[in-house]
Amino acid sequence: MNYGIVAKILGSILIVDASLLLPPLMIALRSGDGTHRAFLLTILVTLIPGILMYWLIRPKMEIRAREGLAIVTLGWVLVSLLGAIPFVATGAVPGYVDALFETISGFTTTGASVIPDVEILPASILFWRSFTHWIGGMGILVFTVALLPALGMGSFHIFRAESPGPVAGRVAPRIRDTARYLYISYVSLTLLEILFLLLGDMSLFDAAVYTFGTVGTGGFAPHNTSLTHFGTYIHLVVSTFMILAGVSFSLHFYLYNRKVGEIVSDHELQFYLKGLLACVLLIGADLFLTGYNTLGISMRDALFQSASIMTTTGYATADFHQWPTFSKILLLVLMFVGGSAGSTAGGMKVIRVLILLKLIRREISKIFHPNAFVPVKLGRKVVPNEVVSRVNSFIAVHLLFFIVGSLVVSLEGVDVITAVSASAATLNNVGPGLGVIGPTGNYSGFSVLTKLVLSFLMLLGRLEIFTVLALLVPRGWTAES
Amino acid sequence: MNYGIVAKILGSILIVDASLLLPPLMIALRSGDGTHRAFLLTILVTLIPGILMYWLIRPKMEIRAREGLAIVTLGWVLVSLLGAIPFVATGAVPGYVDALFETISGFTTTGASVIPDVEILPASILFWRSFTHWIGGMGILVFTVALLPALGMGSFHIFRAESPGPVAGRVAPRIRDTARYLYISYVSLTLLEILFLLLGDMSLFDAAVYTFGTVGTGGFAPHNTSLTHFGTYIHLVVSTFMILAGVSFSLHFYLYNRKVGEIVSDHELQFYLKGLLACVLLIGADLFLTGYNTLGISMRDALFQSASIMTTTGYATADFHQWPTFSKILLLVLMFVGGSAGSTAGGMKVIRVLILLKLIRREISKIFHPNAFVPVKLGRKVVPNEVVSRVNSFIAVHLLFFIVGSLVVSLEGVDVITAVSASAATLNNVGPGLGVIGPTGNYSGFSVLTKLVLSFLMLLGRLEIFTVLALLVPRGWTAES
Repeated sequence: MNYGIVAKILGSILIVDASLLLPPLMIALRSGDGTHRAFLLTILVTLIPGILMYWLIRPKMEIRAREGLAIVTLGWVLVSLLGAIPFVATGAVPGYVDALFETISGFTTTGASVIPDVEILPASILFWRSFTHWIGGMGILVFTVALLPALGMGSFHIFRAESPGPVAGRVAPRIRDTARYLYISYVSLTLLEILFLLLGDMSLFDAAVYTFGTVGTGGFAPHNTSLTHFGTYIHLVVSTFMILAGVSFSLHFYLYNRKVGEIVSDHELQFYLKGLLACVLLIGADLFLTGYNTLGISMRDALFQSASIMTTTGYATADFHQWPTFSKILLLVLMFVGGSAGSTAGGMKVIRVLILLKLIRREISKIFHPNAFVPVKLGRKVVPNEVVSRVNSFIAVHLLFFIVGSLVVSLEGVDVITAVSASAATLNNVGPGLGVIGPTGNYSGFSVLTKLVLSFLMLLGRLEIFTVLALLVPRGWTAES
Repeated sequence: MNYGIVAKILGSILIVDASLLLPPLMIALRSGDGTHRAFLLTILVTLIPGILMYWLIRPKMEIRAREGLAIVTLGWVLVSLLGAIPFVATGAVPGYVDALFETISGFTTTGASVIPDVEILPASILFWRSFTHWIGGMGILVFTVALLPALGMGSFHIFRAESPGPVAGRVAPRIRDTARYLYISYVSLTLLEILFLLLGDMSLFDAAVYTFGTVGTGGFAPHNTSLTHFGTYIHLVVSTFMILAGVSFSLHFYLYNRKVGEIVSDHELQFYLKGLLACVLLIGADLFLTGYNTLGISMRDALFQSASIMTTTGYATADFHQWPTFSKILLLVLMFVGGSAGSTAGGMKVIRVLILLKLIRREISKIFHPNAFVPVKLGRKVVPNEVVSRVNSFIAVHLLFFIVGSLVVSLEGVDVITAVSASAATLNNVGPGLGVIGPTGNYSGFSVLTKLVLSFLMLLGRLEIFTVLALLVPRGWTAES
């Protein structure tokens, strides 16, 4: 391991991180509520080691897969550890573990909260809390790579380790350009949603904060009841932008380049939209037939909640824990499917589920043609066997951590639904689950141990498990296989 | 498709099936409760078409994979349709769908019941109900193959379609001999358990009936409270035989041949026993620490219930729906793991889970050595990539049907736990689940549609999905892939 380069890049991440604390600092200074001291403190303890690490260390500029994994995992942990400081220093959250849980939940775009009453929080903290969604959504490393001088293959290893999905999609030959283009799409989408929310008479502050939670598919809201008290227009705007944020940002970039053909023929997009539509119709029908409300309201709420859960945002316009069993099971399934690879959404990703379904079809056809070579295909493109294997083991290890997480939470003495959905909602970066941690509840009642385990699950979910596992697994264990 | 040979073999299955109705007929005649007419009727409607199909049809004696699949699936459906007659004809069960559910639950060794009070049933019906477990455990086709004149490769296709597990294990070069040896092991195990139960002062009738449910890993009991009212000796005997029945019967055969080396070095057996032990200790500790009972009783009940659920038997010595959440989640996981391939147990089978875990390990090691060829291994044996693929898609399609089943049951208006566990308990051939269909409940409250869907899941689970799917999927769908 080239420790020097790892430390140097971590230093640059800290510098970027410190600059990202400036917007909440501004808000703190404007509101004059005294919270600016907390942000100044955080900026100092972030910036000073950052500068020292970046300028003093002069390592060999070689980054291989191993260093890429280390940079991404350690970078995320560092940024979370430091990002938690404002929560504690302002007294917004009682202890450091709670603050860390909230920060990891923010950066991983989970949106699981330990704060029962967010409406009493200072504006600067509310802003920072949701801004972490925005930063984490596209990835702090992708952001850093966009700013750093070119690192050659090195930046590819970093980019690949942070990008969600089985294959990291580049839209430009150079990773640095890809990172920049992705951020251009991301900023455009952000500005567009703020505009639409302002048109719906939302305040600029609320519009910005809700937009961070939407385009980052995070779900932290500045109101205790999430989006319940808003009207149909806001519900539809947020639904639309959640669905857009669940689409690969390479496709957004194609849109700006008017490569419509690339978008229409994208198999993941088609499957994502068809799957979402099917769930909206099924849940809407279930709600309507069980006497929830009129057909229109049933469909509107089904659309919002399906989009919110599938894109793993976690906003709520209704207490879906009270919904009929059929809808609840479907929402639980959507948590695991998640959004598209290369989007800001969590979950296992649509493309992986699609590849798994294609594999099933291939195996059925093999029963009749046992000796035929039948490749797994997406459209006309053959999916290499290594990718299929990686997808399978990803899904398997994802489910394994889901089970372990459920077992840990179950020791809290909660019911099966709470335990299972808490694990699913954190691992898949959704946020609210069912039962105690449903849309009207929160995670504050759990023990320190459970909060740490769930924080770990959120990181595993965001960084897609293998990235994190690769650092934790002892070398000898993998050599044997 | 060679329809002639399919019909001829189905005829021979019917003849075998008719002869298997003789034991309950004897019991009916001895008890003089008038139920013998129901069995005589069933024997007639089974035997006559059986004889006609077997003797009149003279087809080409060629059986390929396709015919093997058709024979097994249709054979199971036919035998279930006919086996349900005694339940209706004696009035033991109110309607034909209920009777069919009970019969499929019997043959597939599930043990899910729609009969609220079994203690009022006539002895002949109780016997037949549990005898279906015994027949279905090792497989009615395996039994027929053992009796039929040699069919060459044909019997292999039949054997493979009915045997649970990713690779059909033969213990003798000829399938017919393999089938015979398996039945010798099976009968020995049966007689041994009856003997041990008789030593525990059980009546011969109860001993036989409980043994059928144990060695077939079925779970139908002649008492409403399952084994709750028996003492520790009986609990331990049944625990032991459930665990033995969850072991591949090839290994039982090795035991009779004193090939102890083959048994000790079996990776599936090791993993099965270690996994079971870990669950017993975890559940026992959970029960003890939450104040369930003394440490001894906690461990005894944890052993019985873990063994019962992992081998998918479904007997109960306690109402585990009242157990703490941790234990309940662990039991739900055990339902999916199931017993060993080539045993009478259901679930996904230990070997598949083991192969999946090995695949995960391989993929982690590939992060560091992306270009190395690292095969998936069990001990020193390489698992071919095709087997790994088949295992992956099997597990995927298994989980897919689990989700669909949960959604169907959820339309009954039950809670999430009932819906999810009903689907898991039928697909994995366990029997009782949690909630309404827990150890103190039953499936009688469900609608006809749900009962039919769950019956289908039981067949899918027993015949391992691809066998059934292969018949249902239209030809064109598989050709494209």
